[in-house]
Amino acid sequence: MAENYDNIIIGIDPGTNVMGYGLLGVKGKKPHLIAMGVLKLNRMESHYMRLHRIFTRVTGLIEEYLPDEMSIEAPFYGKNVQSMLKLGRAQGVAMAAALNHDVPITEYEPRKIKQAITGNGGASKEQVAIMLQRELNISPSEMPDFLDATDALAAALCHFYERQKPAFARGVHSWKSYIAQHPDSVVKR
Amino acid sequence: MAENYDNIIIGIDPGTNVMGYGLLGVKGKKPHLIAMGVLKLNRMESHYMRLHRIFTRVTGLIEEYLPDEMSIEAPFYGKNVQSMLKLGRAQGVAMAAALNHDVPITEYEPRKIKQAITGNGGASKEQVAIMLQRELNISPSEMPDFLDATDALAAALCHFYERQKPAFARGVHSWKSYIAQHPDSVVKR
Repeated sequence: MAENYDNIIIGIDPGTNVMGYGLLGVKGKKPHLIAMGVLKLNRMESHYMRLHRIFTRVTGLIEEYLPDEMSIEAPFYGKNVQSMLKLGRAQGVAMAAALNHDVPITEYEPRKIKQAITGNGGASKEQVAIMLQRELNISPSEMPDFLDATDALAAALCHFYERQKPAFARGVHSWKSYIAQHPDSVVKR
Repeated sequence: MAENYDNIIIGIDPGTNVMGYGLLGVKGKKPHLIAMGVLKLNRMESHYMRLHRIFTRVTGLIEEYLPDEMSIEAPFYGKNVQSMLKLGRAQGVAMAAALNHDVPITEYEPRKIKQAITGNGGASKEQVAIMLQRELNISPSEMPDFLDATDALAAALCHFYERQKPAFARGVHSWKSYIAQHPDSVVKR
């Protein structure tokens, strides 16, 4: 079933009520939607049952789609310590599933993801969804009912954009090494 | 190597710098020390590398000792949201290792554990270690250098004590069901 992609990125938006996921395949330099969806965590379930379901689902997605990288939407600030502890646990089990399969993880703050997708760090979830639909040519019938799915896909697309950036813009290498690697980019007068 | 225990409890004290663990074997109604130790997380390692090492070590301990239950020391309040998020992740990966092997988890606040072991919720780590040494007949040479190990063992012993309590004292069942299960405990006049 799986097409041959050069690279597959799994985006995860972990939460304690709903977890969103999105899979992006990169072919050439173009990103394509592979799948997206949500895992609804029943309020009647125990906290551990929910964590278990997150771990099992993320593990299943990794084993099915064999992503090369994971991109997680991770707020660094929250309302209170209680909710941050719970969120940390949800992130932790999702990360454990990735680490268990040697999938490297990158995390992005929600504001950073919105900025990358829409150009506006304060964009609404709906605006993010519309931009994704346009950018990835998603038909309206394919759009999910839950914006947690598009949020997760946005995390994956944000990571794709970040990797597309020249190294110096990501702050990974020095300008000097960038010049050395890209001599054609330097305008000589 | 493993003796025949009726029940094995793994205690975990997850942290982002050091993780403590302790294994308690129950034979008859008596708890015995099986093993304890710490996983020191190198400050030079990335956050993900540390989470990976916690997951791998806890998984290894579960596969080696086959515990029936996990008891985790889990503070519900912390200094700030940042540290609680990190702590939540460390707890999450340790929990994922247990959930992945169908090991049920119970968590206890530090105060509750100290109370159960020493009778004083405000006891020091050293006092907890001394009580453990006495209760489990641990020779001084077996005592670990790091109190994170004894803290983890204390979580396991606290869980053992909790399970020893009559059901009504744990608030698990009603008084009525307790009477039905323990007719001999009722004094008839």
